[in-house]
Amino acid sequence: MTFSLSRLEHPIVQAPMGGGPSTPALAAAVSEAGGLGFLAAGYLSPDAVREDLTALHALTGRPFGVNLFAPPGEPADPGAVQRYAATLCDEGELGEPRWDDDRYAEKLALLAQERVPVVSVTFGCPAPEAVADLHAAGAAVWVTVTTAAEALEAARAGADALVVQGVEAGGHRGSFDDAAPGQIGLLALLALVGEAVELPLVAAGGIATGAGVAAVLAAGASAAQLGTAFMLAEEAATVPAHREALRSDSATALTRAFTGRTARGLVNRFLSEHDADAPSAYPEVAHLTGPLRAQARERGDADGLNLWAGQAHTLAREAPAAEIVHRLAAEAREALADAARRL
Amino acid sequence: MTFSLSRLEHPIVQAPMGGGPSTPALAAAVSEAGGLGFLAAGYLSPDAVREDLTALHALTGRPFGVNLFAPPGEPADPGAVQRYAATLCDEGELGEPRWDDDRYAEKLALLAQERVPVVSVTFGCPAPEAVADLHAAGAAVWVTVTTAAEALEAARAGADALVVQGVEAGGHRGSFDDAAPGQIGLLALLALVGEAVELPLVAAGGIATGAGVAAVLAAGASAAQLGTAFMLAEEAATVPAHREALRSDSATALTRAFTGRTARGLVNRFLSEHDADAPSAYPEVAHLTGPLRAQARERGDADGLNLWAGQAHTLAREAPAAEIVHRLAAEAREALADAARRL
Repeated sequence: MTFSLSRLEHPIVQAPMGGGPSTPALAAAVSEAGGLGFLAAGYLSPDAVREDLTALHALTGRPFGVNLFAPPGEPADPGAVQRYAATLCDEGELGEPRWDDDRYAEKLALLAQERVPVVSVTFGCPAPEAVADLHAAGAAVWVTVTTAAEALEAARAGADALVVQGVEAGGHRGSFDDAAPGQIGLLALLALVGEAVELPLVAAGGIATGAGVAAVLAAGASAAQLGTAFMLAEEAATVPAHREALRSDSATALTRAFTGRTARGLVNRFLSEHDADAPSAYPEVAHLTGPLRAQARERGDADGLNLWAGQAHTLAREAPAAEIVHRLAAEAREALADAARRL
Repeated sequence: MTFSLSRLEHPIVQAPMGGGPSTPALAAAVSEAGGLGFLAAGYLSPDAVREDLTALHALTGRPFGVNLFAPPGEPADPGAVQRYAATLCDEGELGEPRWDDDRYAEKLALLAQERVPVVSVTFGCPAPEAVADLHAAGAAVWVTVTTAAEALEAARAGADALVVQGVEAGGHRGSFDDAAPGQIGLLALLALVGEAVELPLVAAGGIATGAGVAAVLAAGASAAQLGTAFMLAEEAATVPAHREALRSDSATALTRAFTGRTARGLVNRFLSEHDADAPSAYPEVAHLTGPLRAQARERGDADGLNLWAGQAHTLAREAPAAEIVHRLAAEAREALADAARRL
């Protein structure tokens, strides 16, 4: 039977966090605690995804999800990428700014073959044929949307649920077109998407507390998806410099400086110095800055890293993931009861 | 006895909408329906405010609020204003870009003398002495905040409640400093402000439905403040061109093009053409563009007007204000009950 959100013990989804923080241990802990854990397949080779799945299966028999990056559109203007590369020459050795599709088709086939319960897609709408293949393999298909128009497109492609991503969210905007990324606050977006489509909604973006979980349920969502709230979890592989930065009260900003795709991170030196020059050119710019970011990570240099973080990052807590899930669920119940008394 | 939010029959506040839409009839209708209506004193002379108060008192004996603009900081760089004026020369005859404080002190004294139940302040934090004067006159003092730091400052000044304005909101950002306006989504901001201060919170920004009202109550707010949702009310004085634009699905954007202060409006020709050139220079730019906007309003030219609108504007409904209040309250109760069942 295809996974349904109503089967979750707690309406809490752990957001897939590509590029490091997501681990099989984190996803397993969240699913075991009664939420829904997620693996992030973006950036990884199909073999690495298969290894993560094996590790996850050893830890839990409960449902979980895997997130895929939809393939980007046409390659970016090489001149724009070259001009950006020229502004980065003092930063260190750059990578080759190549275009690729993150081996999307291979990973889709792998997830179908492995009968993954939930496949969520980000950065675009999967083709109706891809959705049908996943359905045939028993998967529920979720699509990340940032506008009501994207929600309509995803519904037409056959999505089973939508991840509604508010502008508050840390990391990449899931927008179908980075040239015009949806930048709507979560509550307004839930209302707009709920008016446009009938699908179950998973609310994402800046949710950090049980009261926030309660709020999106009241707004009509079937579950809340939290990323930053799990970045300090013991099971997350968030690097130490990133962990420390999350505890600061630095502001966040949207930027294309790190990857050529709009994403929200803590304001640091690299973001401040390069934001204005960065073109919309994903994945070319991600490959270009890859070595710089890897070196900064190794040096523990928070000023050279992409410090993805949602707008409520100061409320993230260091704890085992199961404790985070249980605390959020208990707080959410309390918040709804309080609100009902006030109304 | 000072007004308390817990006295409201429905936790629904009508946002003050300066520059036109707010009327005594709208405020009275909302208060009579069990919400809290608001007059907008910004831009008006003290005499005009007094007339609005007289008109309101003739319509309702229930509590209401009046919103004041805190005085701006130092006059802007005249060169920056002149350069912007030069880019507007094809638009028509410009106004004198003068600095003024909107006769803040006179209006404060008037509101104290008239024993207005709730005085809300936007664009800055009132001095502790001003708060004390209003308290002595029996008024509750609310301060609009867009960051946790502003919330702390308002609490220290003696505010009785905070209007927590998410980035979704239509019209001006209430930020204390327009050079760095808070741009945090409402749900995240409620969590951050709730962690920083103990005051009752009035949530504002992109709330358009009863489910949205329920959501902010679940998130910890004592009431929801809605502006755009009342702009199509029969009692609002929203001009026809603005009403028609609100019904379109145009996107909104933040801009300083119209007033020199960051505000959210529907994207139209004037915004698109002048946004990039506009300096942070309020109220100078507001006076500069005043005649242009007045003429556009007279011509019914939606492309020359500041079309303030929140991010959920397509959900605003044409109806008497009392009907809007009652519908929101009924939907909110239903939404909370549904959410409790789902949890």
